[in-house]
Amino acid sequence: MTDDATPIDLEKIVSLCKRRGFIFQSSEVYGGLSSTYDYGPLGVELKRNVKDAWWRKFVWGRDDMVGLDSAIIMHPDVWRASGHLDSFTDPLVDCRDCRKRWREDQLDEPRCPDCGGLLTDSRNFNLMFRTYMGPVEEEASTVYLRPETAQGIFVNFNNVLNTTRRKLPFGVAQIGKAFRNEITTGNFIFRTREFEIMEIEYFVKPGDDDECHRVWVEECLDWYRELGISPERLRVRAHEGSELAHYSKATHDIEYRFPWGWGEIQGIANRTDYDLSAHGSASGESLSWFDDDAGQRVVPFVVEPSAGVDRALMTFLVDAYAEEEAPTTSGRTERRVLLRLHPSLAPVKVAVLPLSRNQRLEPLARSVFESVRRSSGRNGVVQYDSAQSIGRRYRRQDEIGTPICVTVDFDSLDDNAVTIRERDSMAQTRVAIDALPGELAGRLAG
Amino acid sequence: MTDDATPIDLEKIVSLCKRRGFIFQSSEVYGGLSSTYDYGPLGVELKRNVKDAWWRKFVWGRDDMVGLDSAIIMHPDVWRASGHLDSFTDPLVDCRDCRKRWREDQLDEPRCPDCGGLLTDSRNFNLMFRTYMGPVEEEASTVYLRPETAQGIFVNFNNVLNTTRRKLPFGVAQIGKAFRNEITTGNFIFRTREFEIMEIEYFVKPGDDDECHRVWVEECLDWYRELGISPERLRVRAHEGSELAHYSKATHDIEYRFPWGWGEIQGIANRTDYDLSAHGSASGESLSWFDDDAGQRVVPFVVEPSAGVDRALMTFLVDAYAEEEAPTTSGRTERRVLLRLHPSLAPVKVAVLPLSRNQRLEPLARSVFESVRRSSGRNGVVQYDSAQSIGRRYRRQDEIGTPICVTVDFDSLDDNAVTIRERDSMAQTRVAIDALPGELAGRLAG
Repeated sequence: MTDDATPIDLEKIVSLCKRRGFIFQSSEVYGGLSSTYDYGPLGVELKRNVKDAWWRKFVWGRDDMVGLDSAIIMHPDVWRASGHLDSFTDPLVDCRDCRKRWREDQLDEPRCPDCGGLLTDSRNFNLMFRTYMGPVEEEASTVYLRPETAQGIFVNFNNVLNTTRRKLPFGVAQIGKAFRNEITTGNFIFRTREFEIMEIEYFVKPGDDDECHRVWVEECLDWYRELGISPERLRVRAHEGSELAHYSKATHDIEYRFPWGWGEIQGIANRTDYDLSAHGSASGESLSWFDDDAGQRVVPFVVEPSAGVDRALMTFLVDAYAEEEAPTTSGRTERRVLLRLHPSLAPVKVAVLPLSRNQRLEPLARSVFESVRRSSGRNGVVQYDSAQSIGRRYRRQDEIGTPICVTVDFDSLDDNAVTIRERDSMAQTRVAIDALPGELAGRLAG
Repeated sequence: MTDDATPIDLEKIVSLCKRRGFIFQSSEVYGGLSSTYDYGPLGVELKRNVKDAWWRKFVWGRDDMVGLDSAIIMHPDVWRASGHLDSFTDPLVDCRDCRKRWREDQLDEPRCPDCGGLLTDSRNFNLMFRTYMGPVEEEASTVYLRPETAQGIFVNFNNVLNTTRRKLPFGVAQIGKAFRNEITTGNFIFRTREFEIMEIEYFVKPGDDDECHRVWVEECLDWYRELGISPERLRVRAHEGSELAHYSKATHDIEYRFPWGWGEIQGIANRTDYDLSAHGSASGESLSWFDDDAGQRVVPFVVEPSAGVDRALMTFLVDAYAEEEAPTTSGRTERRVLLRLHPSLAPVKVAVLPLSRNQRLEPLARSVFESVRRSSGRNGVVQYDSAQSIGRRYRRQDEIGTPICVTVDFDSLDDNAVTIRERDSMAQTRVAIDALPGELAGRLAG
């Protein structure tokens, strides 16, 4: 948001991402690959932090969760049983004149939006990327890039149960790449064909699923709010019957108000016992849990909170973006751009800045930098920057969301203290160099 | 190693991995998918820890490195220019009788090893997985799953240079999935078609490359040694001329002595200016750096340390595995299996164990657990376990490499202290509950 509460322009975010090294168009020297992006030096850190914050809350922070990391290429029978081979499709039509291809469900009229030509009848196009394992391209060796990580959890249900001695309810979390051969992509990293996903499959007794579904919507909302997302830009929307995926009894989307309008950043679906039952039937191996108390075997119901890593990252970027008037060191004001990122998400945790490039200052500044890196550098990037005026360096750090700058000035040579500058308030505090590790740890704990 | 210094059986590792939830065969309920594996609840944590330890040392711990995370599917011209479309091939022959397919360079005789049949002439089979982007399977939409992450770094060379204002020498690090359609796989997770890779492209002035190459071999060895790998099971082997990849001037492999013999766990290659020059020519965009001091533009040389995540993980597992005679609580001895994993790699950091399942003990044990999780749980899994005898629970934790067990006993109710038990030495120390967070932090810092 800018300070006058006007939604920001997406182009500003894209431009900042490119200029500062968050996100680049993929294969740019070759003209780019359609809606594919690479994360640059700052982007990779932000993405790591988003994933780590999620894992910390939902896996390490809970008794009832464990993690998993299944392969991207799975046995093709997985997708037959899950329904993806039959049902994970878009209806496509071709223009008989210009040959362009369209999604039928996104057209207002039955004529080509480009040339007005007549369209073919629609046929279902499967969204899974297909490839071949082994040296022969034939039916038997056809495999798919997973379109979701969920199935890797379902087919490992018994393995997880046997090795962790869990009872219901419990959940399994996974973060990883997924691929969907979408026809319509766009809005920067919002909808791409290759993306990363953070999924939980939470297994409950049948009958407990509706209440569990309600609780998970709140848990997920909490994650975004705890990491600083503006609550008024979040909403929950229940899917209409016609929107529901083939496996879902009910789905709630968490949506964020992006510059172009509300967009889904997370879905929380009640997948019922659809997947475990389907794999149980198809494989002949019962995927179920024996309820000692009730003395019977049950196929658990599943509540699935599923979030896109790239979408979450984009949400944090958009929500953190601000422009405001700020005083300069010379007493005037200038417009500054800043990312008000939560400290745990910020790609650079601390920047150490000598007041100027001076041969008396730099040795001390370097030694402060090394000491800060020893303490805070276990949790992220610590930067040293001595190029250009101190004012410009503060602005540079503001623009990438660095929560704290540590400035070493000429007084530091006498008083063995440095100035800590806080990104959002620009408040400056004098801190003894000895006390710096503790002070920084406290401020970064967020 | 067992205590009698006999190399351990690979089957023991595979069995432990399956039994305790480190690694499962992928899609097992469908009979598995050839040499594809899923990481279970403990495996995913071990894998995270391996990658984090690498990132911490080589990215966060250095001034001259930044990270990157490029897409798996890149523009096909990338692979044309890099030489992979032409040269990343294996020579294959078919048996004219039984139709089985073989790698010609791995055959001793020109007859089928299975049936003795005659073989066809060899043809080159490209190791890249091919798929199609967009709804039409045609030449124009053919894309490849990357066989290495390196190219994503090379084509972003200018982007990184422009956004980070680096001078030579500097490096770019990337961790991510890569895919090779290998004919011959095996030795558990040692050689698989889908794998994860940790790569650095380190850019230097031409002429500095040989010395830089030498230094990086040492840096890489240090990483394994710092994380506890037995130095006598590591060696460096220079590639013979005939082994060199098409882009390499010289390559040194770091090898580990696995149960089946020496195996490569990391390659450090001098890729010269091959890739930057190739992409510069093919794209028409110069990938180079202007040397202010020399007043000229140079195409940097590249030293590439490249390590497999899965192989590193397997190395840590194999090296940590031990069997030994240990005293039981009742004064006898029994054989225990343990993983002497470095604390920073251990999937479970701390286990909190009430001496027995007792309603006076459990509330205190639970509160100790919560407090330990608040402190140590930011860096990994903290487990609570109250099932079965304390001796069995110690063994269970030993077997998965948990460095520290915290035991809450009946004395704890009076003295507000607990017993810390160290995995390798089995030494027990009494520690006040208040002092526990600091004590654990010190021991886990490793």
